[in-house]
Amino acid sequence: MTGINRRMMLAGAAAGATAAMLPGAKPARAALPLQGKQNPGWYRYKVGDYEVTVVTDGAGTFPLPDKFVVNASKDQVAAELAKHHLDPAKITVPFTPIVINTGSKLVLIDTGYGEEAAKKPNATTGQVTANLKAAGIDPANIDIVIISHFHGDHVNGLLNAEKKLAYPNAEVMVPAVEWKYWTDDGEMSRAPEGRMQGLFKSNRAIFDALNRKVTPYEWNKEVIPGLTAIGTPGHTPGHTSYVLASGNGKVFIQSDVTNVPFLFVSNPGWHAGYDQDGDLAEATRRKTYDMIVAEKLPVQGFHYPFPGLGHLEKAGDGYRLVPMPWNPVI
Amino acid sequence: MTGINRRMMLAGAAAGATAAMLPGAKPARAALPLQGKQNPGWYRYKVGDYEVTVVTDGAGTFPLPDKFVVNASKDQVAAELAKHHLDPAKITVPFTPIVINTGSKLVLIDTGYGEEAAKKPNATTGQVTANLKAAGIDPANIDIVIISHFHGDHVNGLLNAEKKLAYPNAEVMVPAVEWKYWTDDGEMSRAPEGRMQGLFKSNRAIFDALNRKVTPYEWNKEVIPGLTAIGTPGHTPGHTSYVLASGNGKVFIQSDVTNVPFLFVSNPGWHAGYDQDGDLAEATRRKTYDMIVAEKLPVQGFHYPFPGLGHLEKAGDGYRLVPMPWNPVI
Repeated sequence: MTGINRRMMLAGAAAGATAAMLPGAKPARAALPLQGKQNPGWYRYKVGDYEVTVVTDGAGTFPLPDKFVVNASKDQVAAELAKHHLDPAKITVPFTPIVINTGSKLVLIDTGYGEEAAKKPNATTGQVTANLKAAGIDPANIDIVIISHFHGDHVNGLLNAEKKLAYPNAEVMVPAVEWKYWTDDGEMSRAPEGRMQGLFKSNRAIFDALNRKVTPYEWNKEVIPGLTAIGTPGHTPGHTSYVLASGNGKVFIQSDVTNVPFLFVSNPGWHAGYDQDGDLAEATRRKTYDMIVAEKLPVQGFHYPFPGLGHLEKAGDGYRLVPMPWNPVI
Repeated sequence: MTGINRRMMLAGAAAGATAAMLPGAKPARAALPLQGKQNPGWYRYKVGDYEVTVVTDGAGTFPLPDKFVVNASKDQVAAELAKHHLDPAKITVPFTPIVINTGSKLVLIDTGYGEEAAKKPNATTGQVTANLKAAGIDPANIDIVIISHFHGDHVNGLLNAEKKLAYPNAEVMVPAVEWKYWTDDGEMSRAPEGRMQGLFKSNRAIFDALNRKVTPYEWNKEVIPGLTAIGTPGHTPGHTSYVLASGNGKVFIQSDVTNVPFLFVSNPGWHAGYDQDGDLAEATRRKTYDMIVAEKLPVQGFHYPFPGLGHLEKAGDGYRLVPMPWNPVI
């Protein structure tokens, strides 16, 4: 006989309110008040001789939009959220930059929304600077910032709350294809009103604040020693992923090949509203994921839940993300 | 055309060693040396009005023993590890106590190995005290320590490195069934030599250091308001799980209903060497997990990877653990 039964579990669920004080109970309050504070979101792992520090910028939560997925109904998306044990009425999107210390360079890949976002009331993003500091990293120590593509959650943090350089000593490296696209006046003039025009404008404001002082980098070449840029276009024209390799270590840094895994890893055919060219993004996604599965590479995902490191496996018509166990030592 | 191809990814993998210095590269060393330090392992979430703080004691890694699973071959276990993207030659077992702040009591469930373990060379366990402090919790603030069962990873930390009370102001509450079993001289005399005799002796040493001053608690009753003890025997005779409930929040604290999920959640019929009564432990496991799946309860697992919170779903002949996304705010 086991002592457990369903009635007791349900009873347990309702009992909190009616409980009497226990014998031996002394203070009416806990010795410590509720803390209400989360652990600073950073996590460290080795890739060969390199040290990767994941630093979350936080996560944004919002009511499920009608067309979060362009080619699926809101009901289908809600059902998929529920299937993943999540609230079907809202979406939470995490933002997860990483720092690579190669021993000779301290390199940040993507910036998060940055300090400006942290100033908003009830802010849940803009945590990168605080989390870097918690991890022992001063932004002034960053030698290079590498940008994967020109969306706000990846570039806005190039500037601090005073609209000055957040990484004052860093060289800023950008995908050559992405740079060409967003600085091309013809592309801007042809871009639709609304979100796309807004992106052109905000990108230009950011890079003007840097005096357009950037180093474009090419696909299929090393951006820094050990970090090879892989063109994964569709999400944006110059969207870039990376293979980080050192010694026997290797990890695929996917950037936004998928947005949140609980929708788009399971359903690689779904197109996020954020994907500029949905068909190309899907082709890239399937090709990239098939390769990652075949190579059994660990994957670091910008929109995966912190710390964003896992493995992919085929599951039904899509894939499954298996988060890597947290390592309490490094 | 996407820019990615397999040859490039493999090339990227090998390129680290041969890379030349980049134009624009200045210092030969990063502005910051490798840090080599992991984030203190604590994580906080709300259950209704209650605040739960998960504090990892670390994780132990050891070569895969021949009989880690009593009723499966070493090859089968190694294959299962590989299937979960883990090294098939070794096992990593995490240890994950939690603190519950009810607003009127600060309660620790299980202690981890404690400070004694942290003193060993290259220690990877015994981190609870350090992680409590990182989370803003002084061990002297703990009002109650609740023990789920009498194995070293759950009780050794009752004592600090000086073999004194690690939680000097805490009432220690233990399952009545477990207390009766381990303090019964007849049970001890009948226990097999080796591990079981060792457990009897070390448990008695620990509780003698406490002058046997404990409060036994009963199954199917509240241990503290909102926390109901659920008998889940088999792993030990008095092994106990809990339902924590406050407001609309509810979580099932499974203790050791399974050891590591990547073996025993997938294969509920596998018996860990640590299970004192393998058949009863299996019956408990299946009954408990079927109920958790039916009730869609979140589960907190002592041997789940940090932070140890997830949902269970049926998968094939067993179950699958889906870790809950890390919440960067609380």
